[in-house]
Amino acid sequence: MVTTRELHELDNILLNTTIKLIKRRATHNLQNLLNKTHVADIARIIHGLRPEERPAVYELLADADKAAGVLKELSAEDRLGFIDSMKEERLAKVLQVMAPDDFNDLLVDFPDEKAEYLLQFVKGAPSEDLLQYEEKTAGYIMTPHFFALPEDTTAEYATQKIRELIDVEMVFYVYVVDDLGKLKGVVSLRQLVATRPQTPLRDLMTTKIYSVNTFTEQEEVARMVTRYNLLAVPVLDEDGILVGIVTVDDVIDVIREENTEDMLKLSGTGEVALESKSVWKNLRARAPWLSVSWIGGLIAVLILYYLSADLTQWILLAAFLPIIMGMAGNVGTQSATITVRGLATGEIQLKEIWRLLLRELGVGAFLGIFSGLLLAGFTWLFFPGVTLLPIVVAFAICANIICAAAVGTLVPMLFQRLRWDPAIATGPFLTTVIDIIGVLDYLLIARILL
Amino acid sequence: MVTTRELHELDNILLNTTIKLIKRRATHNLQNLLNKTHVADIARIIHGLRPEERPAVYELLADADKAAGVLKELSAEDRLGFIDSMKEERLAKVLQVMAPDDFNDLLVDFPDEKAEYLLQFVKGAPSEDLLQYEEKTAGYIMTPHFFALPEDTTAEYATQKIRELIDVEMVFYVYVVDDLGKLKGVVSLRQLVATRPQTPLRDLMTTKIYSVNTFTEQEEVARMVTRYNLLAVPVLDEDGILVGIVTVDDVIDVIREENTEDMLKLSGTGEVALESKSVWKNLRARAPWLSVSWIGGLIAVLILYYLSADLTQWILLAAFLPIIMGMAGNVGTQSATITVRGLATGEIQLKEIWRLLLRELGVGAFLGIFSGLLLAGFTWLFFPGVTLLPIVVAFAICANIICAAAVGTLVPMLFQRLRWDPAIATGPFLTTVIDIIGVLDYLLIARILL
Repeated sequence: MVTTRELHELDNILLNTTIKLIKRRATHNLQNLLNKTHVADIARIIHGLRPEERPAVYELLADADKAAGVLKELSAEDRLGFIDSMKEERLAKVLQVMAPDDFNDLLVDFPDEKAEYLLQFVKGAPSEDLLQYEEKTAGYIMTPHFFALPEDTTAEYATQKIRELIDVEMVFYVYVVDDLGKLKGVVSLRQLVATRPQTPLRDLMTTKIYSVNTFTEQEEVARMVTRYNLLAVPVLDEDGILVGIVTVDDVIDVIREENTEDMLKLSGTGEVALESKSVWKNLRARAPWLSVSWIGGLIAVLILYYLSADLTQWILLAAFLPIIMGMAGNVGTQSATITVRGLATGEIQLKEIWRLLLRELGVGAFLGIFSGLLLAGFTWLFFPGVTLLPIVVAFAICANIICAAAVGTLVPMLFQRLRWDPAIATGPFLTTVIDIIGVLDYLLIARILL
Repeated sequence: MVTTRELHELDNILLNTTIKLIKRRATHNLQNLLNKTHVADIARIIHGLRPEERPAVYELLADADKAAGVLKELSAEDRLGFIDSMKEERLAKVLQVMAPDDFNDLLVDFPDEKAEYLLQFVKGAPSEDLLQYEEKTAGYIMTPHFFALPEDTTAEYATQKIRELIDVEMVFYVYVVDDLGKLKGVVSLRQLVATRPQTPLRDLMTTKIYSVNTFTEQEEVARMVTRYNLLAVPVLDEDGILVGIVTVDDVIDVIREENTEDMLKLSGTGEVALESKSVWKNLRARAPWLSVSWIGGLIAVLILYYLSADLTQWILLAAFLPIIMGMAGNVGTQSATITVRGLATGEIQLKEIWRLLLRELGVGAFLGIFSGLLLAGFTWLFFPGVTLLPIVVAFAICANIICAAAVGTLVPMLFQRLRWDPAIATGPFLTTVIDIIGVLDYLLIARILL
């Protein structure tokens, strides 16, 4: 029986056992362990291994269904890592048994040629149809495997049919359709069980149906399922024909995805892949938002300059304070949001602290040096008289941004370690720390150089 | 059939119809409408009405189950509004049929005497037991209405039992227990349907059970349900005895609640009731976070002052810039986060713009005036020589904070109106707007007064 000895403890035990078994080359034991382990847990084990160890462990999953399940649970980054090294025959087997909506989800992460290459393994599969729908719509996230029967079917026959099913994800409802496939009503599994065998579905079904269209946004689907406490919602095409269902577990994924997005947007982090190890991808997602506050900061410098009556070097120095502190504050908030959200969803774990810190320092260094050069250029252009000022502001903004990235990553990690809530570590608390460090080192650099 | 003509359109239609029927005193028609409407939708209707209209509409819900359902869906604020005006007899009927976890949820919002008063109506109900568990644990959010049978029960008998059930929320699983009530296994409804009638549950059940303890944190429960795609998770006490279940719809509520909390914490807004109309409650939640950046800002002023070589009045003015801009930025981010999150969860609607703006202006005015007085005092204390400076900084911080609260509320609303994503409106974009406005009006006030 699995109780929550906190799930991450379970993860640790499983990962450590796996690593031990790999070292001892105890393939048979490892295979036994994997057979007993849930696909979601296996995905975590694989994520925890070194990239070169992953394909060998994945190969041990003899059952194609299980292998497909694990592939689904893996992050895009992890998946990309070893799909290339898989034998074609094996890949075909795995992809063939994958649920169409999951297969879809997998395809989008790959470059176009690769996606086409993968598609050849599932020719004729209904998943090809799903690709016609736009991302983040009901059509895109639905599964075409639902359970529908005509109105005059008896409860007994329907029950009989359910017994024969293997492919349908989870049966909660029997959908009742007419000859054209139009949705007429819904019968819950419980209603089916609780009635006399000869009752036709027509007499059992509810005609008050909550349904969505293929083009309905996934956010709206989530809102409907949440509001009416549904287990699955039927998806209709323009003609009212039932083409798929969205189940509650997929809705939970949507809710988490949308929440992550909102949170990242709130801190101006764009849709960066949280789990991505790449400094470059991170930069591309975060830089556009920072450029907004960059322009704002420069406008503030000019306003301050032109409106000030007294134009000493110190006034100029002070004029640059908002942009230097603002940029550092924004970068720090971005780092903190990524860390807090990652810790909350479990995508980031405490032991990854060094990897994450390294990436954030990389992002910080790049942004810092770039901002420094740009700000020096700007200063030199607008205030050609003051020779050392460009150097001071360049050093200061660079030092502050790097420092903010580090503090933004470390403080939430520290809070997590102390079992405090990491989310508290961000917001005013973090910006205040960054502000004070910022003012201090700006003035110290100025003192030294001026 | 309900398709998503976007849910908020549905809300509007229902609300407008209700208002029309109230005006026409068409009680009978209104009652018919309510009978056909889902409890979640009725709660929205009631929320949309003026407070004095609400009790009369609620009274029209003849069915106690429906009335209890609506009460559950209402926000704490709305509920508090009319529970007092309800007749005791009616209240007793409604509370008696309420699901115990929902009743619990309702109790916490009331002051202690009121809670005890309410408890007297459900004497002997199992809900009293739930109160022993700490908030935000599995024991607290679980329902004690589950469906458990001994190991030697046949599938046929189990099916028979399900038919007789009315009280159990949603049956997804049959829990198999021993004589002491210890959980031994789980049988899904589908397994039950798919087997021969005489099979004992012992032979059907899965013994690999995902379960939690009563003291497990709700976040951990949500993580387990999400990871393993469960529909319900059994809750055990210290002795392994099954005492309740947490269903997936409650887990979705937990996920949303935790996300809201995290987002509010990220912007330093604490656990403010989003939907609360009270300026005072808002202030109490937000002020502690702001005081952190307040202290930081003052430290920055002093650092700047003591480290600057050149001490003109303009340097002093510049020294106050970070605290003035920082405080305004924080207040603006708080307002924006509340608005963005409220719009996302549907707790705030566009038409409430004036009410929300008024509240935020109230919060802004209070924080602004308070900050202004405090900052003036501080300035006067530390820089007694400069007579007008305290007045300038006081005016500036006050004006900026009020302005930031307004901008932080209006910009996300405007984005929503234009059908852009309101979340983009916050973060760097917002702080930049607030920064520029801040520098401008600070210097203008300084020019006028100095």
